[in-house]
Amino acid sequence: MNGEHFKLLSEFVSPTYLNQAVGSRNSASGKITELLTQRRIPQTGWSADMIEMFIREVSLWDSNNFPSKGCVGEREGRCVSDLVRRRHWGLTHGIGRSGDVNAEQPKAAGSSFLLNLTKCLVHDALKNIFGISQLPREVVVLPIATGMSLMMGMTAASQLNPTRKHVIWSRIDQKSCIKSMTADPSLIVDVVEQVVSTQSNTLETDLSSINQLITQLGHDNIHSIVLTTSTFAPRSPDNIPAVSVVCKEYNIPLIVNNAYGLQCTKCVHLINEALRVGRVDLVVQSTDKTFLVPVGGSVIFGPLAGTVNKIYPGRASLGPILDLLITLLEVGRDGLENLLSDRKSNSEYLKQQLEGVSEITVLKNNKNSISLAITGEHITSSIGSQLFLRNISGARVFTRTDKISQIDLRVALKNFGGHQDKPLADTYLNAACAIGTTREEIDLFIKRLGGLLQKH
Amino acid sequence: MNGEHFKLLSEFVSPTYLNQAVGSRNSASGKITELLTQRRIPQTGWSADMIEMFIREVSLWDSNNFPSKGCVGEREGRCVSDLVRRRHWGLTHGIGRSGDVNAEQPKAAGSSFLLNLTKCLVHDALKNIFGISQLPREVVVLPIATGMSLMMGMTAASQLNPTRKHVIWSRIDQKSCIKSMTADPSLIVDVVEQVVSTQSNTLETDLSSINQLITQLGHDNIHSIVLTTSTFAPRSPDNIPAVSVVCKEYNIPLIVNNAYGLQCTKCVHLINEALRVGRVDLVVQSTDKTFLVPVGGSVIFGPLAGTVNKIYPGRASLGPILDLLITLLEVGRDGLENLLSDRKSNSEYLKQQLEGVSEITVLKNNKNSISLAITGEHITSSIGSQLFLRNISGARVFTRTDKISQIDLRVALKNFGGHQDKPLADTYLNAACAIGTTREEIDLFIKRLGGLLQKH
Amino acid sequence: MNGEHFKLLSEFVSPTYLNQAVGSRNSASGKITELLTQRRIPQTGWSADMIEMFIREVSLWDSNNFPSKGCVGEREGRCVSDLVRRRHWGLTHGIGRSGDVNAEQPKAAGSSFLLNLTKCLVHDALKNIFGISQLPREVVVLPIATGMSLMMGMTAASQLNPTRKHVIWSRIDQKSCIKSMTADPSLIVDVVEQVVSTQSNTLETDLSSINQLITQLGHDNIHSIVLTTSTFAPRSPDNIPAVSVVCKEYNIPLIVNNAYGLQCTKCVHLINEALRVGRVDLVVQSTDKTFLVPVGGSVIFGPLAGTVNKIYPGRASLGPILDLLITLLEVGRDGLENLLSDRKSNSEYLKQQLEGVSEITVLKNNKNSISLAITGEHITSSIGSQLFLRNISGARVFTRTDKISQIDLRVALKNFGGHQDKPLADTYLNAACAIGTTREEIDLFIKRLGGLLQKH
Amino acid sequence: MNGEHFKLLSEFVSPTYLNQAVGSRNSASGKITELLTQRRIPQTGWSADMIEMFIREVSLWDSNNFPSKGCVGEREGRCVSDLVRRRHWGLTHGIGRSGDVNAEQPKAAGSSFLLNLTKCLVHDALKNIFGISQLPREVVVLPIATGMSLMMGMTAASQLNPTRKHVIWSRIDQKSCIKSMTADPSLIVDVVEQVVSTQSNTLETDLSSINQLITQLGHDNIHSIVLTTSTFAPRSPDNIPAVSVVCKEYNIPLIVNNAYGLQCTKCVHLINEALRVGRVDLVVQSTDKTFLVPVGGSVIFGPLAGTVNKIYPGRASLGPILDLLITLLEVGRDGLENLLSDRKSNSEYLKQQLEGVSEITVLKNNKNSISLAITGEHITSSIGSQLFLRNISGARVFTRTDKISQIDLRVALKNFGGHQDKPLADTYLNAACAIGTTREEIDLFIKRLGGLLQKH
Repeated sequence: MNGEHFKLLSEFVSPTYLNQAVGSRNSASGKITELLTQRRIPQTGWSADMIEMFIREVSLWDSNNFPSKGCVGEREGRCVSDLVRRRHWGLTHGIGRSGDVNAEQPKAAGSSFLLNLTKCLVHDALKNIFGISQLPREVVVLPIATGMSLMMGMTAASQLNPTRKHVIWSRIDQKSCIKSMTADPSLIVDVVEQVVSTQSNTLETDLSSINQLITQLGHDNIHSIVLTTSTFAPRSPDNIPAVSVVCKEYNIPLIVNNAYGLQCTKCVHLINEALRVGRVDLVVQSTDKTFLVPVGGSVIFGPLAGTVNKIYPGRASLGPILDLLITLLEVGRDGLENLLSDRKSNSEYLKQQLEGVSEITVLKNNKNSISLAITGEHITSSIGSQLFLRNISGARVFTRTDKISQIDLRVALKNFGGHQDKPLADTYLNAACAIGTTREEIDLFIKRLGGLLQKH
Repeated sequence: MNGEHFKLLSEFVSPTYLNQAVGSRNSASGKITELLTQRRIPQTGWSADMIEMFIREVSLWDSNNFPSKGCVGEREGRCVSDLVRRRHWGLTHGIGRSGDVNAEQPKAAGSSFLLNLTKCLVHDALKNIFGISQLPREVVVLPIATGMSLMMGMTAASQLNPTRKHVIWSRIDQKSCIKSMTADPSLIVDVVEQVVSTQSNTLETDLSSINQLITQLGHDNIHSIVLTTSTFAPRSPDNIPAVSVVCKEYNIPLIVNNAYGLQCTKCVHLINEALRVGRVDLVVQSTDKTFLVPVGGSVIFGPLAGTVNKIYPGRASLGPILDLLITLLEVGRDGLENLLSDRKSNSEYLKQQLEGVSEITVLKNNKNSISLAITGEHITSSIGSQLFLRNISGARVFTRTDKISQIDLRVALKNFGGHQDKPLADTYLNAACAIGTTREEIDLFIKRLGGLLQKH
Repeated sequence: MNGEHFKLLSEFVSPTYLNQAVGSRNSASGKITELLTQRRIPQTGWSADMIEMFIREVSLWDSNNFPSKGCVGEREGRCVSDLVRRRHWGLTHGIGRSGDVNAEQPKAAGSSFLLNLTKCLVHDALKNIFGISQLPREVVVLPIATGMSLMMGMTAASQLNPTRKHVIWSRIDQKSCIKSMTADPSLIVDVVEQVVSTQSNTLETDLSSINQLITQLGHDNIHSIVLTTSTFAPRSPDNIPAVSVVCKEYNIPLIVNNAYGLQCTKCVHLINEALRVGRVDLVVQSTDKTFLVPVGGSVIFGPLAGTVNKIYPGRASLGPILDLLITLLEVGRDGLENLLSDRKSNSEYLKQQLEGVSEITVLKNNKNSISLAITGEHITSSIGSQLFLRNISGARVFTRTDKISQIDLRVALKNFGGHQDKPLADTYLNAACAIGTTREEIDLFIKRLGGLLQKH
Repeated sequence: MNGEHFKLLSEFVSPTYLNQAVGSRNSASGKITELLTQRRIPQTGWSADMIEMFIREVSLWDSNNFPSKGCVGEREGRCVSDLVRRRHWGLTHGIGRSGDVNAEQPKAAGSSFLLNLTKCLVHDALKNIFGISQLPREVVVLPIATGMSLMMGMTAASQLNPTRKHVIWSRIDQKSCIKSMTADPSLIVDVVEQVVSTQSNTLETDLSSINQLITQLGHDNIHSIVLTTSTFAPRSPDNIPAVSVVCKEYNIPLIVNNAYGLQCTKCVHLINEALRVGRVDLVVQSTDKTFLVPVGGSVIFGPLAGTVNKIYPGRASLGPILDLLITLLEVGRDGLENLLSDRKSNSEYLKQQLEGVSEITVLKNNKNSISLAITGEHITSSIGSQLFLRNISGARVFTRTDKISQIDLRVALKNFGGHQDKPLADTYLNAACAIGTTREEIDLFIKRLGGLLQKH
């Protein structure tokens, strides 16, 4: 309601009480002003009611919600199910237009505004909360998940240098990453195995092999180098800074899979360093793994992000962006910072608790603060599914078989799942402490793992 | 509640009343049985309450909603915002896994089931309601919109014949279609302009030019032929059957952009004929334009659909699939059939009403029953925006300029927006009667258009 | 959002699209202005979204929703369940204060406003839609149902004349009506049986007995006369005008149970006539039977309404008032008028359809347009429950037994359920066509009744 | 879904994942079994989703939600607003029937069940959580607030002894309490002022005056004695046990206003003692002040509760009962116990914090653990409204004027607001620590109070 309404209200409510009502409304109004001027995540999260009120009002700006309208186009944001319409607050037009998936949609000023606002808040989160100090001005938020964004990144790199066909890839055993590189049948994936660090007995990026490959293939033939930060132990985050320097020297695009790396200061440090000293063309983050929203979105930045935005054909779902916006407003800066510091301490807690279990050994890896690998006499291939049957999800077992898996016609990997051909241990169990993990969950995991181990 | 509960309830409620309660509950239960056994859209739509109850129950099967659970993975469907979680009924895990975007997700039996169910209902809709009688057994439902699905289709065709680079394209002036072909920088787009039919004075597929191009380029070099059904008048749907026969003869993949063609029996007939007599590799439908859900999904079928499914890297949003499922359950077979028959009669009504406006002429086109083109002295370039300012959306004006637009480095088109280099009229206005358009909207459009024309 | 916000928005959205957004928002804003200035039910109903947005904004004015608040009282509108809070949009303070249940609640300016607004809209509905042309300026809306409001009306009448103890009651066989009179053990209920009209063979108010009782008991001893409009056939609405004249002459309070009478123009006419020519102290309407809201509220008017308001001890639930407000806003004047005219024609339809069933006879009663009584060879006592088992609710059978029912120590009635000691028929079935009844329901009733009758 | 459905599901979902789904569903199902067999508040609260699923399923049992139904009655639970229907999950029939407001409603088996279930859970809460160890078997839950329930209690007492007219009332300055006694104009309220305890300098029940009044008026003329537990300091809870013994001896009904007393173990102890040693006819609790639900309900017990139930005329709103049920399920036993123990410690905290403010004195009162009274040079009449303007609600100031307030024709009180004619202090401020009050609120109150005091 506006000032005029409040004048009219004085015939319904006593001035004294109305004044206080105006105060309450102005406070809400002030929060919106603050959001629009500062374009940052609010310090304290908004209430769900406040957020719904905000979204509902914005949805009035989309043409499908105009009063007294006549639509004679082929797509008009019509929604035949009321239940569906309600869960989207009438925001049915999606985002983007032919030219650009992050472009303003003429029929949907409201949705377009929400997308822009989300981008501002995500930029704030990445720069000021997660700590990407060297963040470029533009981040692109896409309603497709990490793998698909990586694939779009590969296509964008092809646009940059259409004739280059070799992709140098520091091995990480995750199928969607491989598929993002092999979707284009003309690309050749050159696998660089991890090497065991003599100092720390962890898996690390094989810099010399990468350099060797560049020389061998000719840097003009290198389509891109693909590295990964967030990863299962005992693999470490790749050495992004060192490779970025090489990329800069040889003019090679560098694509970084940072799916859930933002929650870890070590990964953030690697990205920052690379942005400072070398060349980084694209960094891809998962929204669900970073911001605890439903699966379906990603945040990308770097020079190739703009290209991805441009080559994205047509419009796309607003849903994952809306989820992200709501989450950032509801959690607030304080909430997000708490989630990060909780993760850090819980990660330590998980390690300590596991080290307290006598039957197992935790592999040391100072570079990977998210995932742990544990070995032990009774850590066998079946323990993962036994844990799953006991409602412990996410604990995965790797067992060395020395078999070669043909992931794609062009990609064959020995000991798939172990991230290298000669794994550090024959069998190990991975457990992670990701953002959102609670102490109660860790305790439950330790208890049920202990229970299984003691059966023997 | 189950039978055991109803026994216990007899101490709370009198047997007589309880019996009737059981009857009501069995009726709801029977609807679910019918859905699971028949795998078809219910004849009469379900109530929103019934649908919510169903989804809520299914969501219990996803691991993030398990009781007493411990999650030690890096992605566990966590949702920090309660508002976000509620709007997804806790279905946060998304769909797919590394291997296949339509594959079962181990952590999300509920979401996986909903995806499978949706595919069954969509298959039923396409075959038995929209009338694609020759529909292949598998349809793929993707949480990406039409343009992105077309792009994935192009990549899938590349996987089929990696060395073929020429795409023969029957021109349609829609940027996302062009972008879906040009994302891969190695593809060359060969534009085939529409020709004016001597019989009917409409724009039609230039079959002889297509044949000529195949000969000229060599059929072994043709990556694919891309045609479109649903289109703005005066362009007609492409002659899919004739081209499909050529594709069959020369072993060339045929990709059909059928974005909103299902609602039109003429387009459906073209697809059916082509499936019967020729080769059709992929047909792409928009979910928002076909099923009146928010933007963000598409339905694809044909041999390449399986490839798209396989090369899709990683997981994806469940949102657009859920919207589609809810809509099909809520609308029911009766509702969907009514929408289709209403569209047909409203389409006639729009034509009649426009023909009743003295200042304008409706261009005849028997092949395009969705879009109309009208000309007239006062139909000028500004009338589209004037209508938009009066809350009439979707009415677009084309004006001939004879300029060439460079849509992409590789694609330059004269008179962009008119679907051919020599348009049938210098200026015309398009209006469509798509599924969901009401008579009230048509009346409003006619009234406001009439108002603008009478100003002169 | 306010004007200032829209200025800030220009950096997020293009001016052209923003203008249209402002237009859409102003349209919504204009509806609120219209509501606040006209204080009438909107001609066209508001959308559910618009209503929710409105309520949510108003809820910010209640102290429990103030930002940065400290509550150190014993009742502060706290709500520990988020689910409960959401279903009330945070409006938890209820209505009223010690002095007056319809008085402004200092801690709840928002709830107080909504109550006042509801009263305005209800006044509008009663006067301008239902047609109570002589409506007093004040109506009171209470979150208690009809029976409880009648009981409060009896107490209010006692306050008027504390020493009068005789209640003259024109018999209607409804327990809650009797209980409202007998709650106070000092009151004596003098039953006046209905008489059979010689002209029309219907049951009518026995005016001469009422006059005789007044004389016999002494008008100074008459606490009140209680009449009823809406009633099961063959009973007719009481002759309110004639009795109101008597009440005026003898200075006796007249209380009218008009539970669902507003939907019937005959009942409305009786009330209007009485207001014009006689004395009417209180008219009580049910909100659920009149406005199709959940059970729990009533609307009262007449001089005693103010007294009821004053003697109501303490605060009360806002819920039923909120339901009523939402309903009036959502249905709109057009919707309410349609409901009324549909009822009228459906009532005729029900009668015709019943008259078409050969096995039964419909008792004629021109004064009662809501309820019908039907007799017939196979209309037996069991047919009501047989219909209920077939999901036909509301059809009730009366069977003459000539037994006396002791409803209360002070009230004994012969042939309870038939509204008089000598019923017009030995067995009959009642069916009603109340507001909201659809033709489909009538058809179903006729079909299932027919099915049962044909079994014999 | 039932077992049959799960068999059918095996064609949609892999057996392994389905098994786990069944496990999750059985867990939910087990919670319902536990609830129905134990009839106690669940130890751990249910999730909002679980509660909604439960209510939604139960709502199917009400006749208005039956499939294929025909309603030909005058009230059929119709709901014309979808928004209203949704917020009640289709539970529109209300509770009760003519005979009894807590009786089973034939058309609403679901609503009737929910009412019965609520009564079981409330009984559990009162007995096992709040500690009313002597609780009678039946508690009545009413959708009317405390004042109205007290009024019904007075009427019930009148039914017990229709000729008794004197109400002995231990003064508490709360209008709705007085109104509940004066609604019946034939009752005479005999005010018993509080006396100052010589030991503790607090206000206490004047037992000797009560005894004297009984003798003076004649115990056969005493309609009832009305006492109060929960009260503003410096008034103490009344001496319920001592008076209950007198009531037992003289056969006088005792009515106890225990609005928000359950949260305080001292008040609970008084009730328990009285139930053990004396006569207690009715104890009335507010649901909003006790269970943190929106205003509108009360819980009553004692012999007169059944009478209230019986004289309640007709049906009533289910809303307040539903709010209570949801709250008890959502909060769980653990949550409710935490709220109680938090209140206890926060109450101490408030006292300590206030004692730390140098400008004020906290009046000692060991019997009242909810409310505090503070005095001080700058505690003046305006400080209450100044605090309210600073969003501190619930802090009320009493100032001695020695004026007499005519609350009702029959009740005149000197120094109204101070609970006695000769207050313990000329001016004091009340602050309470009721259930739900947080430490943050106390801190805010102390800070803003301190700020105001320091202005001087």
